[in-house]
Amino acid sequence: MAPAGYGSRVEGIHAVAAAVAVGRVERLTVERKRRSRQEIAGLINAVGEARTVYVDDARDIADTEAPQGVVADCAPILPVELDSMAIQNAAIIVLDHLEDPQNVGAIARSAAAGGCTGLVMSGRRSAPLSAAAFKAAAGALERIPVAVVGSIPDALRRLKSHDVWAVGLDRGGDQSLFGLSLFTEPVAVVIGAEGEGLSELTAKRCDVVASIPMADETESLNASVSAALAIFEIMRVRKPLR
Amino acid sequence: MAPAGYGSRVEGIHAVAAAVAVGRVERLTVERKRRSRQEIAGLINAVGEARTVYVDDARDIADTEAPQGVVADCAPILPVELDSMAIQNAAIIVLDHLEDPQNVGAIARSAAAGGCTGLVMSGRRSAPLSAAAFKAAAGALERIPVAVVGSIPDALRRLKSHDVWAVGLDRGGDQSLFGLSLFTEPVAVVIGAEGEGLSELTAKRCDVVASIPMADETESLNASVSAALAIFEIMRVRKPLR
Repeated sequence: MAPAGYGSRVEGIHAVAAAVAVGRVERLTVERKRRSRQEIAGLINAVGEARTVYVDDARDIADTEAPQGVVADCAPILPVELDSMAIQNAAIIVLDHLEDPQNVGAIARSAAAGGCTGLVMSGRRSAPLSAAAFKAAAGALERIPVAVVGSIPDALRRLKSHDVWAVGLDRGGDQSLFGLSLFTEPVAVVIGAEGEGLSELTAKRCDVVASIPMADETESLNASVSAALAIFEIMRVRKPLR
Repeated sequence: MAPAGYGSRVEGIHAVAAAVAVGRVERLTVERKRRSRQEIAGLINAVGEARTVYVDDARDIADTEAPQGVVADCAPILPVELDSMAIQNAAIIVLDHLEDPQNVGAIARSAAAGGCTGLVMSGRRSAPLSAAAFKAAAGALERIPVAVVGSIPDALRRLKSHDVWAVGLDRGGDQSLFGLSLFTEPVAVVIGAEGEGLSELTAKRCDVVASIPMADETESLNASVSAALAIFEIMRVRKPLR
């Protein structure tokens, strides 16, 4: 079964501008009273009046709470094949059933900024790549390759067969994330779900389970913050080698 | 004028549990059909039936979208005096007019986990410490001291008079955040507003303006991600000295 595309709905000025930039927008819906605002006028101009419709309140048709007066229906983005991600400098972020689309979007944004080469997520129980995820990603989901898989443990096994190491991130991890030497190798970092952390089978498939050292171990971190710390740690560990 | 307290409304299981733990909850409102769920029953037990009321749908009275069946009206938390924050190992996060309460809450959460000694925010134009901020903070706003000031540049001046250095974080910064030696000193890190970055006057008051090196400089980071990278960088730079 070929996986379906994602990102057919994009909302909010920044996210819509990114979809416009890659030429995906098929219909733009704009709030009438905001049509002459500079950023929105620019979007209308790029998409063309023929493909623009006007409404009184964009929130009536929006999936997100604050569409900022602009909603785009788009040609979907097709996921990439997992195997195509096993490249020499692979820095892949694997989302182990995250449920909050805002976290998924925020992680995509950090991943793009930190030079990650792809995202992997499950097509089953995870946060969909919804309009909320695209809004939080601020355009990054237009650019970073995403593979959608049936099983995260199986995806890690397949990546390993291509010499991509798996590093799980979990507060129970026995090595510090900071300075992890494995990050010089092609690597996939697995971020656990909010609250639950890594699933047992996923943790077993990881070569290393790392934790983020905290000043106060009774506190916790948001999944998107944990992911960002890992993303920039990969960049930092690799930098001297470049 | 004495600044008003904050945090009189807390929503969501995790955030309410943290307010209960510090004894601030004056009235608990619970969704009738969820009263026997384990976490919620524990909250009712701690607060007492005499101070608990039941409703059909907690969302009807909630400020946040997903109160998870529980809303608490609380005795407010009083801000601390700015001058009291100028301690020997000060690691203060200053929010330069952030507008998204979720970012403010997420930054408080990372700051508590990373061992920061306080937060400073403006009482004027910034994100209020709303129920949404408390929910995103997952309890951290119950524990981390917060100073509310009239002017961020003035607050930096006062901190400097107590030998606390100011480091601004801005993509235009001319030093890398990573490895900043100033972090061994008592320090206040200033996070700019979403989109706008640091205000001009605030940037001028900083001893250093640092930027986060990115693999792709056309990308950007969420304010709460930038803050988290700074928080954990302070911890990392200081660690060998402890």
